[in-house]
Amino acid sequence: MSNPIPEKFSDLMEKKVFASLATLMPDGTPQVTPVWIDFDGENLLVNTAVGRQKDRNLQRDPKVSVMLIDPENPYRYLEVRGKVVERTLDGADDHINKMAKKYMGQDVYPYRQPNEVRVLYKVKPEKTSSMG
Amino acid sequence: MSNPIPEKFSDLMEKKVFASLATLMPDGTPQVTPVWIDFDGENLLVNTAVGRQKDRNLQRDPKVSVMLIDPENPYRYLEVRGKVVERTLDGADDHINKMAKKYMGQDVYPYRQPNEVRVLYKVKPEKTSSMG
Repeated sequence: MSNPIPEKFSDLMEKKVFASLATLMPDGTPQVTPVWIDFDGENLLVNTAVGRQKDRNLQRDPKVSVMLIDPENPYRYLEVRGKVVERTLDGADDHINKMAKKYMGQDVYPYRQPNEVRVLYKVKPEKTSSMG
Repeated sequence: MSNPIPEKFSDLMEKKVFASLATLMPDGTPQVTPVWIDFDGENLLVNTAVGRQKDRNLQRDPKVSVMLIDPENPYRYLEVRGKVVERTLDGADDHINKMAKKYMGQDVYPYRQPNEVRVLYKVKPEKTSSMG
């Protein structure tokens, strides 16, 4: 296991970046939404709710791209293309709280809807491109 | 011709938003890069340089997504999915200067490389989704 993220851009994994996650619709059209982003040293972690468009897309087709713009310099960015290697409900609740801490400074994710089930995706990076 | 952009989000077309443009690689993997964005009342306009990955992708497959996060509120965004309806070199130089004015306050695009040829894409919106 080696870190697939270029050292020069590893800071973007720590910053409060609203990443752009691209998935694929049933007809192959890309779909892009902002996501909170996490990195475990090997895979990118994306947390969403069961049943959302991105969840349906990712179950159908594992090919994704995640693009992170440096909040301090919009001309500096990292794109990571790869594939979903795991989808799990285990630990997804703890993980969304971890993300709420990172992005909002709150111990518990405050936007939870009634009956919402969180799901955690692990994306294995295959290719990166960058600028800046 | 009717404006396909929801009135509530039309301000995002005027702001200095670094949009996330998703195109498709030859194997169907999405590719995402930040772009300056323009809107002519009917189509989204994206300006790039001939030969770049996104130019090659867009010539092969017209399906795209453009996602704009409000610079003043990262939890407010608009996604526009659609298709390329025109690729032209005509007016692309003037247009990149217009974008330099919008984003940098400069009359002439300052990042031009030797031998760079600008190309202008027009994307017809087919579907929008949003939050906030």
